[in-house]
Amino acid sequence: MRDFSGDHTALSLNTATVRKQGPLNEILEACVRLDIRRICPWRDQVQAVGLDRIAAQVRDAGLELSGYCRGGFFPAADATGLKAALDDNRRAVDEAKTLGSPCLVLVVGALPGALNGKAAYTDIALARTQVFDGIAATLEYARQVGMPLAIEPLHPMQAAERACINTLEQALDICEALDPERGGALGVAVDVYHVWWDPKLAAQIARAGREYLLAYHVCDWLLGTRDLLNDRGMMGDGIIELRKLRGWLEAAGYAGAAEVEIFSEHWWSRPLDEVLTTCIERHRSVV
Amino acid sequence: MRDFSGDHTALSLNTATVRKQGPLNEILEACVRLDIRRICPWRDQVQAVGLDRIAAQVRDAGLELSGYCRGGFFPAADATGLKAALDDNRRAVDEAKTLGSPCLVLVVGALPGALNGKAAYTDIALARTQVFDGIAATLEYARQVGMPLAIEPLHPMQAAERACINTLEQALDICEALDPERGGALGVAVDVYHVWWDPKLAAQIARAGREYLLAYHVCDWLLGTRDLLNDRGMMGDGIIELRKLRGWLEAAGYAGAAEVEIFSEHWWSRPLDEVLTTCIERHRSVV
Repeated sequence: MRDFSGDHTALSLNTATVRKQGPLNEILEACVRLDIRRICPWRDQVQAVGLDRIAAQVRDAGLELSGYCRGGFFPAADATGLKAALDDNRRAVDEAKTLGSPCLVLVVGALPGALNGKAAYTDIALARTQVFDGIAATLEYARQVGMPLAIEPLHPMQAAERACINTLEQALDICEALDPERGGALGVAVDVYHVWWDPKLAAQIARAGREYLLAYHVCDWLLGTRDLLNDRGMMGDGIIELRKLRGWLEAAGYAGAAEVEIFSEHWWSRPLDEVLTTCIERHRSVV
Repeated sequence: MRDFSGDHTALSLNTATVRKQGPLNEILEACVRLDIRRICPWRDQVQAVGLDRIAAQVRDAGLELSGYCRGGFFPAADATGLKAALDDNRRAVDEAKTLGSPCLVLVVGALPGALNGKAAYTDIALARTQVFDGIAATLEYARQVGMPLAIEPLHPMQAAERACINTLEQALDICEALDPERGGALGVAVDVYHVWWDPKLAAQIARAGREYLLAYHVCDWLLGTRDLLNDRGMMGDGIIELRKLRGWLEAAGYAGAAEVEIFSEHWWSRPLDEVLTTCIERHRSVV
């Protein structure tokens, strides 16, 4: 297992962690200042500054992406909506390519409309079928362009609104159906927050193997979690066995970044440099 | 599939649904008044009035229990704590027997201390081992007394604090290990709130079969859920496919109660009779 205690070369910053502290160009400047060399930006943050400008900044600063967030949200109430989702995913693939990302992370979507408070339908099996079809269609294009897709299983508490793929096993079933040759075109993003509770986690990480393990996200699960979305913890402040989980991934062959992704009203309220230096410190001490 | 539209004989009231509206004896009086003939009381509610008094009230009113809540919380930081949990579970078995319950529902516990904000350890695999051992020990006593134990898998968002058994598959693995003969001594309580999201749910309900399906709890998952514990919805107000799920259980042979269990600050703030009449109405129209 890699030793993270001496440096933070393996640390990547998912830029949503500090999304309320400033525009993406300033976040990237802070990363350079603190010698964080890897990032995973979100589409809306890129768009707010401009794709070409961010691409140039990444290139000039010698930053590396560990992923690009996000494609997905495939289910829809009708054919027009399904088509619009596919078009949007093609654009996300293109943007990931422009930024030089190693993969596009997919938050696959769930009951259409649920995120806005009203589900167009409640048949989660149908949503799962639409997700499968949407990944298959997007994969066809992503293969042509050479952009791997990383399916991110989301915590079951997000199953209605954000992603109806809720276990690593379920995500890997799709990988094996659509990319049985394990050629690198399709895989998973393992976020500890979403999967730590799973009794089958160790076995499924081993099943995934190096070829399907495209990304690894860290944060922590806080006792007394107050919000289903924005109360994630800084690594070390909760109960997730971070070292043990990383050990499982590395035993399976994973050698990529440990990407910090924290959605938290608390951490969004702290100064940018404080959050980043805390991430670095915790990366060395507990990740 | 049974037709619930004409009456509410299959409705059971889990008395936690109206725990803030009054003491258990008054809740049971309201049930009799509204012709709700089945109940599932909680230990603390029984204790507050007195076990013998509630047992007599249940008997005199001709009420039937669909379960008794709850045993469990097996994991502990040390041998003294493990022993205390087993003692407490024996008492719960005895109380269930006194009340004539068909089963004792187990919320198995998770990281010891986590519910009070500080986990004695974070090794969830250890907690799961302690749970397995605790169920095995309690089962030995429960068999002698003739009280079936119903393991309730809890939603993964409760995995740190309340139950480290989080899928029906995981619960059934324990049933098959400890009661392979399916003799009725051990089984599961299926609560739609905890399991609706599971992509393997239909298959696992079929696997469970009549012998392991000891209890069925209903409520609903609200879009925009604001709290991990106390924001459950009234049946019909959320996105759970209640008819479909009951169909799966009945196809597997389940013919017992549909027990309403709603933890909700909203419904706790409404008058007792309003909550119960709403439960009856929704039982007929959407359960």
